[in-house]
Amino acid sequence: MAGRTTTPSQASPFPPAPFRYKKVVGWGDCDPAAVIYTPRAIVYANEALDAWYRDWLGSSWYFNNFKLRSAVGTPNVYTECTYFNPLHPDDRIDLVVGVKKIGNKSITFTMDAVRIDGKIAFRVIQVCCTVDPKRFRGIPVPAWMRAGLESYRESCRKAARAAKRSTKRQGG
Amino acid sequence: MAGRTTTPSQASPFPPAPFRYKKVVGWGDCDPAAVIYTPRAIVYANEALDAWYRDWLGSSWYFNNFKLRSAVGTPNVYTECTYFNPLHPDDRIDLVVGVKKIGNKSITFTMDAVRIDGKIAFRVIQVCCTVDPKRFRGIPVPAWMRAGLESYRESCRKAARAAKRSTKRQGG
Amino acid sequence: MAGRTTTPSQASPFPPAPFRYKKVVGWGDCDPAAVIYTPRAIVYANEALDAWYRDWLGSSWYFNNFKLRSAVGTPNVYTECTYFNPLHPDDRIDLVVGVKKIGNKSITFTMDAVRIDGKIAFRVIQVCCTVDPKRFRGIPVPAWMRAGLESYRESCRKAARAAKRSTKRQGG
Amino acid sequence: MAGRTTTPSQASPFPPAPFRYKKVVGWGDCDPAAVIYTPRAIVYANEALDAWYRDWLGSSWYFNNFKLRSAVGTPNVYTECTYFNPLHPDDRIDLVVGVKKIGNKSITFTMDAVRIDGKIAFRVIQVCCTVDPKRFRGIPVPAWMRAGLESYRESCRKAARAAKRSTKRQGG
Repeated sequence: MAGRTTTPSQASPFPPAPFRYKKVVGWGDCDPAAVIYTPRAIVYANEALDAWYRDWLGSSWYFNNFKLRSAVGTPNVYTECTYFNPLHPDDRIDLVVGVKKIGNKSITFTMDAVRIDGKIAFRVIQVCCTVDPKRFRGIPVPAWMRAGLESYRESCRKAARAAKRSTKRQGG
Repeated sequence: MAGRTTTPSQASPFPPAPFRYKKVVGWGDCDPAAVIYTPRAIVYANEALDAWYRDWLGSSWYFNNFKLRSAVGTPNVYTECTYFNPLHPDDRIDLVVGVKKIGNKSITFTMDAVRIDGKIAFRVIQVCCTVDPKRFRGIPVPAWMRAGLESYRESCRKAARAAKRSTKRQGG
Repeated sequence: MAGRTTTPSQASPFPPAPFRYKKVVGWGDCDPAAVIYTPRAIVYANEALDAWYRDWLGSSWYFNNFKLRSAVGTPNVYTECTYFNPLHPDDRIDLVVGVKKIGNKSITFTMDAVRIDGKIAFRVIQVCCTVDPKRFRGIPVPAWMRAGLESYRESCRKAARAAKRSTKRQGG
Repeated sequence: MAGRTTTPSQASPFPPAPFRYKKVVGWGDCDPAAVIYTPRAIVYANEALDAWYRDWLGSSWYFNNFKLRSAVGTPNVYTECTYFNPLHPDDRIDLVVGVKKIGNKSITFTMDAVRIDGKIAFRVIQVCCTVDPKRFRGIPVPAWMRAGLESYRESCRKAARAAKRSTKRQGG
């Protein structure tokens, strides 16, 4: 950590935070009103979360369920989505994944869809619990997963503070 | 057809309440954990709501947006879903549509997925607003839609009271 | 209908043929051109086929893969779809399932989407092979499945002949 | 970079050919057999084609239908898909778009899903026709679209010849 500026990606083996999953709103995901069919926004958010597990945490839903010696499933128990601004075909969004709460047997994520103009199109808050996939019974969040979640949350906080400082310095 | 008793369907031009949309959980709607991929539960709920507009209210989303002289769109501004019990392929559910709140420019619906064993698999609460589809600006809930919503809510209440009386009479 | 003649449903423990899966085209299945997003027509056809296995053959994809002592999977190896007439939201269709060919290790199905005006909206031809799901290797079509497929195909032929006779008798 | 050789991207204002749309197979796109639910492969292929129009041709389905002065729709009239090798969650594929035939009022595309090991997972062949979206009647492929299609097909051919030469030179 010595020396001058280090980005989160240099300070840790993990890629930069926050994780931004890029998506272009598809023609086939929009309805005859030419806006996204809203349930599909929630599909997008879960696609981003699937990618976060795979590309950031390094262990996907598939790996967690089927390839780990101590398998762990993370079924959703609650999802909410607030739609702030409409999305049309071809709109480019970043789905920004955040960790809101790390419980004993549950995790709360946020997935914000940010448009190119900086406005939030929709925000998903989602709670999953951790289960033994064979018996579908609750188990504590595994230590390795908790470590990754905490590291990610800390990286996001650092990035947010750095962004704030940078905005101030520029007189923003 | 003589006598005093009338079922809700006889007392009104509308079909019986509550509206139950039947669905069998598809193989393709389940993920490798062999349970429903949870975002698709929200797709199911919206399919049921689309059917409610069409089959109960008598005016579908398509009709409201494109065929009415005074067109009205009902885009979702908020959706939440709580998952109580898992759903597997071939599970038969009734999606029971309820009207929770009729606002000035918004409507709150509930869609409960009831399994054959009477347990609730998931419950969706969803708020839509009423808009002029051409300008995507809020407009008051049209009078004809409000009348239908109130009639439906009243029919559901009557049906609930009748079900309660019937349960009591049977010493339940 | 007097005398000895029996309808296919009386002559066998199976429900009447052909199997017709009813579907209403959803608002969310249509794109901004207000016609069905064509890949979803193929999703509809597979939903109908899933229902055919479950409701006609009596053994669903889920059951075949996970509940049978001698498990059998039927992954698709080829799908084609010809679109003849457009489908709009609220259009009611029957997806009529047919068995075109019963091979040694493969089955060819047809799924015709028939509109209420009798016109075919789209026709899907699909070939699946039969595999041992654990090793994902080809196995012969199991005897019980072959019997059901042949019985269904025969029932469809009988129904077609009866329909033809009935049309003739009416001077059609 | 000296000399006469130019890559397709230097010789034209268009990006390099062939267009490769990258996709990771999602957990939610796979069924309980832990392979892609095959109709969703066709959804993937159409997502790639939507991206090709937008990112290569420079005029998306949405733009073509709603923003052009001379609007043009390209509804599919035929789709086929051959599944060669299974896809599991997390598998990375390139969807490679090809132009097979440019007719008077129709276009035939191919979308090949190439796995990281170079094997083809599935191949989609799809025919669309060109229509006036307001009247849903056939019109000739517009000149600007034909020019783009021909340019793309030529770029793909050049790239294929260059790849062949490069393989030969390396004694491949």
